Amino acid sequence: MKMIVENVRKNVPLVHFITNYVTVNDVANMMLACGGSPIMSDEVKDVEDITSICNATVINIGTLNQNTIEGMVAAGKKANELGHPVILDPVGAGASGLRTETTFRVLKEIKFSVIRGNISEIKTVYAGSGSTRGVDADAADAVDESNLQQTGEFAKELSKRTGAIIAITGAIDIIADENRVFAVRNGVAMMSRITGTGCMLDGVIAGYVAANPDRALEAVTAAIAAEGLCGEIAAKKVQEEGSGTSSFRMHLIDAMSLLDGETLAKGAKAEQI
Amino acid sequence: MKMIVENVRKNVPLVHFITNYVTVNDVANMMLACGGSPIMSDEVKDVEDITSICNATVINIGTLNQNTIEGMVAAGKKANELGHPVILDPVGAGASGLRTETTFRVLKEIKFSVIRGNISEIKTVYAGSGSTRGVDADAADAVDESNLQQTGEFAKELSKRTGAIIAITGAIDIIADENRVFAVRNGVAMMSRITGTGCMLDGVIAGYVAANPDRALEAVTAAIAAEGLCGEIAAKKVQEEGSGTSSFRMHLIDAMSLLDGETLAKGAKAEQI
Amino acid sequence: MKMIVENVRKNVPLVHFITNYVTVNDVANMMLACGGSPIMSDEVKDVEDITSICNATVINIGTLNQNTIEGMVAAGKKANELGHPVILDPVGAGASGLRTETTFRVLKEIKFSVIRGNISEIKTVYAGSGSTRGVDADAADAVDESNLQQTGEFAKELSKRTGAIIAITGAIDIIADENRVFAVRNGVAMMSRITGTGCMLDGVIAGYVAANPDRALEAVTAAIAAEGLCGEIAAKKVQEEGSGTSSFRMHLIDAMSLLDGETLAKGAKAEQI
Repeated sequence: MKMIVENVRKNVPLVHFITNYVTVNDVANMMLACGGSPIMSDEVKDVEDITSICNATVINIGTLNQNTIEGMVAAGKKANELGHPVILDPVGAGASGLRTETTFRVLKEIKFSVIRGNISEIKTVYAGSGSTRGVDADAADAVDESNLQQTGEFAKELSKRTGAIIAITGAIDIIADENRVFAVRNGVAMMSRITGTGCMLDGVIAGYVAANPDRALEAVTAAIAAEGLCGEIAAKKVQEEGSGTSSFRMHLIDAMSLLDGETLAKGAKAEQI
Repeated sequence: MKMIVENVRKNVPLVHFITNYVTVNDVANMMLACGGSPIMSDEVKDVEDITSICNATVINIGTLNQNTIEGMVAAGKKANELGHPVILDPVGAGASGLRTETTFRVLKEIKFSVIRGNISEIKTVYAGSGSTRGVDADAADAVDESNLQQTGEFAKELSKRTGAIIAITGAIDIIADENRVFAVRNGVAMMSRITGTGCMLDGVIAGYVAANPDRALEAVTAAIAAEGLCGEIAAKKVQEEGSGTSSFRMHLIDAMSLLDGETLAKGAKAEQI
Repeated sequence: MKMIVENVRKNVPLVHFITNYVTVNDVANMMLACGGSPIMSDEVKDVEDITSICNATVINIGTLNQNTIEGMVAAGKKANELGHPVILDPVGAGASGLRTETTFRVLKEIKFSVIRGNISEIKTVYAGSGSTRGVDADAADAVDESNLQQTGEFAKELSKRTGAIIAITGAIDIIADENRVFAVRNGVAMMSRITGTGCMLDGVIAGYVAANPDRALEAVTAAIAAEGLCGEIAAKKVQEEGSGTSSFRMHLIDAMSLLDGETLAKGAKAEQI
């Protein structure tokens, strides 16, 4: 873990984001806090040039519109051509027709390195990634100790189908490629009382993978543990202060800006399962 | 007031927002802080599905464009079909032709449960809501003790015209349906030194109404008192710290995340007039 | 400097922004903090009316798209008609074809009062502002003590070409019109570890120029010194607290909201060179 964090600070990966306008400022500041550098661009005539000067591309469909969908496809294809890691966050896949269709479309047209979502979104990805099985993926509705192995198998299968590392985030996080599964138990409940922890994590993952291309599965796991650990540090401050959710948001990004490899190595609760 | 606040925390109303990109992050975080949950979507092909899974819809024209106007109309109509409360914030109505026209258009095509704005915006709404009288509504340019009754009568008449609860926010806030008028005297001047207090309030109102459908007028009043009281709490912290407007913004959202029904019941300065 | 700051607080300049969606909330809050008032609008059918009620216009191409480009041109032309100061921030000019083309287009169609960017963006502006010389402007790649005079000459020449005050921001900031050059040595490195310090500065510059029309060069210099000084104040707080980059962002805006003319007059490190 130590080296993974340090590689990000050393290499300063430049990450291109097509992301939603709700959390985009937090995403940019978190990207800077973890040691990378963000560029946002969603206009179809702009994205290929911007992707070309970056080291990784994040596609988050949180507030998609007809123009930005075309931008996502163009950026993803260009990143594929260049061999850059591409991260998909299928926000709300399954919750609306357009989001589900868009998820299916980008899965067909772009090869992703990492797909990150909650269990419900990832099940929708599963439904759109194969030809035979429907949405009734063999996975639980919420990941807990009782179904951890089962969800890990599901993630491995989806990784095989898509070629992407699958990250299912929740109270316990599951990260899998075709062969291995990690579980991360960092994080606190307060992370769901602010907007954007998932979107921010997309960027951290992109930066960690871009700076550690030969150890992508470990990098995704480290990124998820890192943000979870920062959440723990922030929650402790909030408790000491008697403050609230907006202070939590600030302390979360502060903690990431201060995080070093040694701290993560000590604080990460990650294990292969 | 106590029960109204508690119903929000218990029911966790899901609110669909078509709002401006300036304050959208604060809106989302304030929604979460008050006990609800936000989803943002403005693409016309996406909004009906999203509105359908929500409990209320907010239409805020702060940074409208030709595409999002169509999204507003489609979302509002769908919410009407489903019987969901719809909140209008006619930001800048009267300040530009497009904003005024859009306000008039949505007033014709959508039935609103609550219309919230400053006195100038609400006077523009008045001009567009009837057939005979022009913009010279019988209302003052700023609400103070001397014209409170008169403004209350104006708000009642506008409520009768539109069928919506009218909330005129300012140094003193007026909330009216056809029959009753409330005045709220919470809040501090510093709230106008940050952007978004009005937009955040739209969401709090939506959540409060969605969680208290049988007491909508009281719910709007409680929401306005709640944010004003949080402003008072935040201003006190800023004064103690000797800090500034950005700290104020954080303390405002913090205070909402900590607010319980008892605190509001004690601190609300609301009365029927 | 003292009077310049006080004129902003006294006149409360209203500034119209067409800016990127990444940092727009910080821009609005910084505008309020320095004593002005922001309005955001990018829809081509809305911008002329909005520009007409404002005192200055900011065009920042950070997340441009085909619709907002038309809004930029329409707003800029209208502001020119009305004699309002117009500020250009050519974010990423040189980094993508569309950004470079758009920069060249607005330079042709709009007369700017101030153009602010980093040295790389300003060199792209230079390439697009004349007819004979290419991108190989006679300027260094980073401004330091060794090439300060040379960069000042470059800025003066560009000011002559464009009629705009040129502000090249970096570790040392250069501000020039055709005849005079100022250097500002305020600011701290941490300002580049958060997003938006440049975009926020665009607004501060617009407000300072709008409130001090007869001393535009001094106003731009004061605005840049002001934000840099606020950065120094914020960095000191962060060091005392042992906090991080998100706290820094808050303290930066806090400091601007508390800044008075006397503090700037004492703390500004600006000199004519």
